[in-house]
Order: sequence, then C-alpha cells, then structure tokens
Amino acid sequence: MSGRSERRSRLELSLLVEAGDPRLVALLARAEPADIVAAAVAGERLDGEELPEPWLRRADGVRERAAEVAGHARARGLRWVSPGDAGWPAPLADLDVVDPISGATGAPLGLWVRGRGDLATLMDASVAVVGARDATTYGCDVAQDIAGDVADAGVTVVSGAAYGIDASAHRGALAMDAPTVAVLACGVDVDYPRANAGLLARAAEQGAVVSEQAPGQTPTRGRFLTRNRLIAALTRGTVVVEAARRSGALNTINWASELGRVTMGVPGPVTSQSSIGVHQSLRSGQSILVTSGAEVLEAVSGIGEVDATLAWAPSTLLDELPHAARAVLEAVSAQSAEGTDVVAARIACDPAAVQEVLAHLCDQGWVERSDGGWRLRRRADLSPGQSGRTVTR
Amino acid sequence: MSGRSERRSRLELSLLVEAGDPRLVALLARAEPADIVAAAVAGERLDGEELPEPWLRRADGVRERAAEVAGHARARGLRWVSPGDAGWPAPLADLDVVDPISGATGAPLGLWVRGRGDLATLMDASVAVVGARDATTYGCDVAQDIAGDVADAGVTVVSGAAYGIDASAHRGALAMDAPTVAVLACGVDVDYPRANAGLLARAAEQGAVVSEQAPGQTPTRGRFLTRNRLIAALTRGTVVVEAARRSGALNTINWASELGRVTMGVPGPVTSQSSIGVHQSLRSGQSILVTSGAEVLEAVSGIGEVDATLAWAPSTLLDELPHAARAVLEAVSAQSAEGTDVVAARIACDPAAVQEVLAHLCDQGWVERSDGGWRLRRRADLSPGQSGRTVTR
Repeated sequence: MSGRSERRSRLELSLLVEAGDPRLVALLARAEPADIVAAAVAGERLDGEELPEPWLRRADGVRERAAEVAGHARARGLRWVSPGDAGWPAPLADLDVVDPISGATGAPLGLWVRGRGDLATLMDASVAVVGARDATTYGCDVAQDIAGDVADAGVTVVSGAAYGIDASAHRGALAMDAPTVAVLACGVDVDYPRANAGLLARAAEQGAVVSEQAPGQTPTRGRFLTRNRLIAALTRGTVVVEAARRSGALNTINWASELGRVTMGVPGPVTSQSSIGVHQSLRSGQSILVTSGAEVLEAVSGIGEVDATLAWAPSTLLDELPHAARAVLEAVSAQSAEGTDVVAARIACDPAAVQEVLAHLCDQGWVERSDGGWRLRRRADLSPGQSGRTVTR
Repeated sequence: MSGRSERRSRLELSLLVEAGDPRLVALLARAEPADIVAAAVAGERLDGEELPEPWLRRADGVRERAAEVAGHARARGLRWVSPGDAGWPAPLADLDVVDPISGATGAPLGLWVRGRGDLATLMDASVAVVGARDATTYGCDVAQDIAGDVADAGVTVVSGAAYGIDASAHRGALAMDAPTVAVLACGVDVDYPRANAGLLARAAEQGAVVSEQAPGQTPTRGRFLTRNRLIAALTRGTVVVEAARRSGALNTINWASELGRVTMGVPGPVTSQSSIGVHQSLRSGQSILVTSGAEVLEAVSGIGEVDATLAWAPSTLLDELPHAARAVLEAVSAQSAEGTDVVAARIACDPAAVQEVLAHLCDQGWVERSDGGWRLRRRADLSPGQSGRTVTR
C-alpha cells in the first residue's frame, strides 16, 4: 500500500495541491495519487474530468522538483511520512470534516518531520495546548504550567510554535525534559516566527516539528487554518488558553469539536480581552472548563472512554475520587431521585458512561438508587473537611 | 388568612423557633401558628405530641416579648411582613427543600423589613449577587459592574451585606440610584458588619434590609446558612462572584440550584484561590458561566421562560441575536444534522424551549432542517466580520 512509489507519488501530489483542498478528497476516493500526478503532468483528463487549473499549472517538472525536495530534505535530516508508514498517526484519518471558513478538509497527503521522534508514538497520548499570540503573562504562565503537568504525566504537548500561548506550551513541556511537537504552517525547516528558532530546534530534538507544507514553504493565513486541523486531529483533546473574540485559536478548538476530540478552555478574568473567546466557547458548551493540568488529563482520559473499573479502588474521601466521578457526583441531586439521563444531560456526558460511573458510586455508598433513579446518599461517616459537596452547602 | 392574629401568632412563634427548623415545617402542615404558640405557652402536647424542648424553654412570656419586639420595631420604623400580606414575596413558598448541612428548610414565618420598599415588588425582578468576604479587587470590581448593569436594567440586586463581594454588589446598585435589598443573618437593626452601617442605611433608604431574625438578634454560623436560603429563594437567579474552595457563597448557589433558580458563576484567573469554588461550580455544571450584567440578565430571562416571539425581529447579524439564541446556534453542528435533544443536551437546556428557538433560527436562515434534525446553514451573505461562529473557524 505504501511502497516507495506511493510515498513518492504522495509527495509529488503534495507539491501540486494546496493542503486541505476539498477537491483532492473527492479525487482520492476514486484515483491513486500516482494516476492524479500522471494526469496532471500529461495535462490530461482523469476519468473524463478536468483537473483543477492550479494543479495543472504546477505540474510541469513536478517529479524533478519532488526529487529535489526529497534530496534537500534528506540532507537536512527531514523525513516525509505518509499513510501506511510505521510512524503515520492513525487519527488523521478522521479529517473528513470541512472547515466552513476555509473550506479545507481531508487528511494530509503526508507530513514532513524534523526530529527523530516517532510521530505515531508521540501522538498516542497527546494534548494540544493553543491560544492567543497576543497573550497576557497570566495566560502564558498558565499555559506553561498546564503543559508542564501534562508533559510530566507522559502526555505529548502539541502546539503551533507561535508567540504567546503556543510558545509557552512548548516551553512548559521542554522544561520537564519531555517531548513536544510543533505543527507548523510553513516548512519544518523554516523558523517562523524567527524568535522561536531555538524553541523549534529544541522541539525537534526532544520531540518533532511537523508540517504538511514542503520544506522552504512560507506560512499564509490559509495555511494557518489548514494547519489547525492537524493540531486538532493529531491529539486527543485541545485546550485553549486565552483567545480574544475572533482569535485563530478558536479555529483549532472548532476543529477539535467537529472531530469529536475533547475541547477544553481555561477561564481568565472577565475583564481581560484575551479571555473573551475562551469564555464564549465555555458559555456555548463547546468546551469544558479546566483550571489545571490534572483536570486536562482527567478530561482526555475521561468518561466514556476510560475503563471505569480501573482506578476505582474503594474510597471514602471525595477528594480521592477520580475527577470524572466527582463531576458525576456533583450532578446528582440530594433532594430527589433522578434518572441517569437527567444526570448525564446536566454534565453533557454520555448516559451509558454516566450509568457505569453511577453504579460504581452506588457501590461505594456515594449515591443510592431510589424510585428508579439516583440520589445523593447522606454520608454521616464523613467529617465536613472530607466531603466537597456536602461541605460547600 | 393573615389577619392581625395570624400575623402576631407568626411573630410569636418566630421567637420560639430557630429559623429554618425542619420540625416547624412538619408541624405547620397540620396546626395553626396560634395553636402551636398556645400549646408551647401552656406546656402542653399538640395532637398528642411533645413540642421540641427548646421551644418550650422559650415559651414563657413569649406573648409579652412579642408585643415588646413589635413596639420596639414600630418605634424604629421596622415592619413585620408575613404570608398573606400584600408585600409578601410569593417565591418563598418554594422553600420546602432541605439543606443537607444545616438541615434547614421551610419558608420563613415572616420577615422583618427595614425601609419602605415593597418586598414583593422589589423581588418581582431580582438577582442575587453574592461571593467571598475575602474577595480580590478583581472580584469586587466585577461584582460592582455586574450589579450596576443589572440594577440599571430595573432588576433588584439582592445580597447579604457582607464584606467583599456582597458589599460591592450593593454598592453597584446604589451607584445607579437603584434599589438593592440586603438580607441579613441578624436583626435588621443590627449593623453587621459594623463597617457596612452606612451601606445598610442606604439599602434601607433605596430598597430594603430584610431578615427573619428578630430585631436585636446577632448573627451565628447557622443563621448565615439559613439566611442563604432566603437570598436564593427570593430571587430569579444567583450569581456567585469569587468563592474559595469551601466558601459560604457556594451554599447560596447550592440553595439556588435546589430551588430551580438560575445559577451563575463569574470565572476568574485559575491562579486565584478566590475563584476555585466558582470554577468547581462551573465545571460540575451546577452553574453557568457569565461574564457581564448583560449575560446575567439574559440568563434570568432565559430560554424556556422568555416568550420566544418577543425580541425576535429578523436579524442577519449574529451579534444582534438574543444571547439564548446565540447559545443554541453555537450548539448546532455545521457538519451533520442532529436532533433537538442532542442540541439541547449540549447546552443543558430544556428541549422544548430549544426546539422553539431552533424554529426561529430556521425561519431566519441560521439553521436548516435536515434528516429530521438541525444543521448550521452556510450563510454566504454574511461578511466574516459579522458572523461569530463562522469567523472563529
């Protein structure tokens, strides 16, 4: 499937087609990359259809250019990874949704990688931490802390290497001597922004710098938008730390949301312009509120996916319950028995997963079944200092 | 129902029973206040049951003490308002839930009022703004701003006159020359805290100072907890601005939640201890995130209650949509059609109300029906600067 020629054909095709072009998705459903390149080079129709004019314009000498790019990349230690390769991150296959702004869609034809890290392994447990370029020191500090805690737990921090939140996220991971992955809107050998050249070098050393743009390519607004889909698709969840009303970081969280990834937002002062976009995302229910790396980790290993039988040592202390369980517990009424659906709707979670958590909470004496529903059980054995819910009342 | 003797009997009974005593709720279901007082004074059983011992202890001379209190109150311009009186706030009847910490429950026997404001009128459109005593300047500024905007819209700001957020909330309303209501855990003639004496005097002048404790009574921890149920019950919604992990302000939001009132929280920096309790409440889904007075007003006149045909002038601009509609719109997927239940669950709202909003959004071209569900409609006619959702992608 991914022999030398398939890989090379994909590389050649990537030089013809702008990343994220929705027409390519349609075409790849019925033609091999090699056939598309061949048709473009020959200026011929494919299955009786004209290829898009911009592709044809770039077709002249594309095979030579591809060989040149490949040689140049090899000399600089850059790799081209494509579907079927061992390091290819499987979650990219989810990229069949369309961005309503740019119209972009589709998995990348391949990815350029700078650094020795195996992409699939790095992405296996990963979280994107993104946000405003024009960030506050509060936002940068929080991004660095969250990224540090996430990285320290063995989860790869992914971001876009921009000024502000992105750079702080990478720094937080690097400070833990943990890998981090920078996904760029330009070639992986292009230091953009220039001031982050050192950061990119360290990311390549400890993790990877990744792009679907060929080496040497410069970033454009459109490429930032298509790049965002990769950050969202590569990771289990995206945290946005500071975003003004129309920040590009919200584009990444939208992609993550459409891709069914965990979408998280870190609140800030309501007086800060830099938090308005995050608050909007939280208010709309698009993302969930997180305040720490621990909460991010809990969210991405969250309800509905985590094996509820794991990490469920009997516990009498609320603070020792897994976060997901606490969230469910907080949603159970002390006054009247309510069905699983009502509890699940209150925290916008999957009823089946909530049901499983409730059963465990029941086993441990936190909740009780009543009238076919669930209600909070009074726990006389808990001292006030040990129980969050009852104490705060 | 509320003739002179019923009112007086309630006043007498209030001197026997600590506010919020759940035993009183049970007793009032089958006996008149006058009968309970008579039995207590005579040291007799009522319907064959012993009255609680503390009530009996206070019964000696209670009628004389009540007359004395009434005379003292009259001389100071304080009023006793009880159920059936014109100024009695009807929503207090909802107070049949029990606080799991204090065990408190029940509507008050009556309320002492300082100030000429009609309580029922003042509470008709009202919002509680509460929070930490140990607040930050950020919290106090935000509380004052939100209270000011809410008050400016003709909605009464209710709070507990404590230091910090409470005092700032009252000040915000007073700065708009708008009424504000302080609900105390001590007598309405007791200036607690002392430093807020001027504030209480102004609240009485422009609105009212209210308590179920008799004049002269001092506050206790238990009385703060029972007082909180009044703040929650009297208002359409409660906003908590700053609350540490186990802040008393969370008790008020819990009461509001149990009473089915709108519960709101203002986020702050995740690095601030003073916002931890609010963030917990937001994370658990107990309260909704608000960042301004406008958002508070929208929430309390929110989905499910507001007449959806009002304020629905055709609008092509996202920013001109009512907030509730924007929230629904944000929850509609651009990619796949989803049922009303799915959209409603995402924002934890009543499906029937969401259905109504979706129908309006459909009429206006924001969403379209598809496969028996709803999906976002591409709006080619909108310039990027005019559409929040599409722009942020």
